[in-house]
Amino acid sequence: MVSYDQATGVTPTSAEPEGIGRLGPGPEFDLIRRFYSGWGRRNPGDVRVGPGDDAAVVTGDGIVLSVDLSVEEIHFRREWLTPEEIGGRAAAAALSDLAAMAARPIGILAALALVPADADAIATDVMRGVRSAVEGVGGVLLGGDLSRSPGPMILDIVAVGEASAPVLRWGAMAGDEIWVTGQLGASGLAVATLQRGERPPADAFERFRRPTPRIAEARWLAERGVPRAMLDLSDGLGGDVAHLARAAELAAILQADALPLHPALARARLSSVEALRYALTGGEDYELCFAARPGTMQAHQAAFNREFGIGLQLVGHFEQGEGVHVRSGDGSRVALSQAGYQHFGGPR
Amino acid sequence: MVSYDQATGVTPTSAEPEGIGRLGPGPEFDLIRRFYSGWGRRNPGDVRVGPGDDAAVVTGDGIVLSVDLSVEEIHFRREWLTPEEIGGRAAAAALSDLAAMAARPIGILAALALVPADADAIATDVMRGVRSAVEGVGGVLLGGDLSRSPGPMILDIVAVGEASAPVLRWGAMAGDEIWVTGQLGASGLAVATLQRGERPPADAFERFRRPTPRIAEARWLAERGVPRAMLDLSDGLGGDVAHLARAAELAAILQADALPLHPALARARLSSVEALRYALTGGEDYELCFAARPGTMQAHQAAFNREFGIGLQLVGHFEQGEGVHVRSGDGSRVALSQAGYQHFGGPR
Repeated sequence: MVSYDQATGVTPTSAEPEGIGRLGPGPEFDLIRRFYSGWGRRNPGDVRVGPGDDAAVVTGDGIVLSVDLSVEEIHFRREWLTPEEIGGRAAAAALSDLAAMAARPIGILAALALVPADADAIATDVMRGVRSAVEGVGGVLLGGDLSRSPGPMILDIVAVGEASAPVLRWGAMAGDEIWVTGQLGASGLAVATLQRGERPPADAFERFRRPTPRIAEARWLAERGVPRAMLDLSDGLGGDVAHLARAAELAAILQADALPLHPALARARLSSVEALRYALTGGEDYELCFAARPGTMQAHQAAFNREFGIGLQLVGHFEQGEGVHVRSGDGSRVALSQAGYQHFGGPR
Repeated sequence: MVSYDQATGVTPTSAEPEGIGRLGPGPEFDLIRRFYSGWGRRNPGDVRVGPGDDAAVVTGDGIVLSVDLSVEEIHFRREWLTPEEIGGRAAAAALSDLAAMAARPIGILAALALVPADADAIATDVMRGVRSAVEGVGGVLLGGDLSRSPGPMILDIVAVGEASAPVLRWGAMAGDEIWVTGQLGASGLAVATLQRGERPPADAFERFRRPTPRIAEARWLAERGVPRAMLDLSDGLGGDVAHLARAAELAAILQADALPLHPALARARLSSVEALRYALTGGEDYELCFAARPGTMQAHQAAFNREFGIGLQLVGHFEQGEGVHVRSGDGSRVALSQAGYQHFGGPR
């Protein structure tokens, strides 16, 4: 949700039930809403950001915490990835939540459940992947837990970071520009190709198996005061930008021809509608999406590209209204009703 | 393991491989050791306690973090417990790790994986149990994650607390007394009875389905400076006290006739060896076990009993040597070779 940051005196104006923020639409979020209903919005002094944002933030120091479960057959399949890649991906997904808050990584806790027959063969490889991902962003292993599983391999990664001024999902204003780092849709294309039993394009597969949390990029942007609201793209731009829109009680308008499509989408000879679908709903891109005051990002864009070389694209804006709308080159506008990846009930 | 607390200048003297502390013996711990091997013992400035203790501790504020996975068919069975009890138990297990460090709970992050058909029916009940457990110790829900599972229900609880002076597993000295809160063996008896398809004694079942993390007790003891080293009894006294012994490079000597056996063990007409086995290896008692300088605890014992009414028992001492040894009334001494619950490879 959104913070209701007691420290900075942000006052919630949402009409949501007590204790629950402005999550995006869809059946998964209905369930999450039910989870938190009744919890109250009691943020004691040491809770700065509670449920609903990319991560929780506790204490004046701004300790940022996020938890990600990766379950075999749901989040990955063993035939697609090595154990080391499975570990690395799970860690990257959790670390990406730290990027979403512009936090500096401290480390991770890793809990792993395996069938005993697997434990000797793959546990160290999985952990090597976790280690490589967390060390790659300057963090360390803080601890963990090991247990048996009756079947699926289960990885649980807790990312721990620090951000004295975390960037929240809440904060976009009408007129703000919507920016996206990197390129979209490659990971979704890789998964769809693998699901058909085919071999994905090498560059798309690389994005799927070795996602890069945009930690340095997020901190660079936050140091320059650019993002007013931010999240990481884990479920697809369409569904994720809905969180920013809903948190701000605004509509997000995306320009279809401005979306930074990964080149693998063009090479795959998809229709423009199909390519757009991967960019909007593919998921697991782990790029950043943020709101910027009109005209403020442009001054930094060249420096960002020099520093990181991953691209940074203006893809739309927020305005009065609600929902996520995609505007085509001919000026027509389509509302996304069921955007992003819905874990429960929704179509993929 | 043990902290190697850079803040207090504790110097590790273990002969363990780099980066891994002095875990107890057994196949599970061999695997954990392998996990951490190669991670190095690099505790940056903001990591006070790394892998191997009950929880990690970060930053000068002493933020205490622990992760616990509860997996259906491994840690619980649905036919034994209601969804609310499943949630409460998972939360209590994680919160018990905060007690082990004498930390004040801030809150928890809860990640849940369910098959879609279950989601509507039980998710809110599971979370109600989580909520009740965390609110019972003054904490709140900080956030979470919800995903699908291909079969087993998976609960992952991250407990977050604060302890400016956490009590670690390391720190026992030769001659220190070993103390245990409450009574042991009831939870193990309940599980064994359930596994035979029988109905456990009501009081033993209550200990199994509604464990109480000893948060207040631990903080009370720590405020009086009593525990030099402490942990919570999740795997059975025999295996858990081995962690304290190993961390201190000492032997733990337990007095068989001093162990505070739960009354249900007596009523179950077990042989004295069987009753002892439940107390030493039953697991999931979630009582505290700590080392105290000889004679320091006795002055507080009456006040502790008045305050908490759960009992506090002197059960043994540490001395030069290694391992865990049980001394009987006749003076004979038996070394425990395979103590506690071993998730991998060991018999239960």
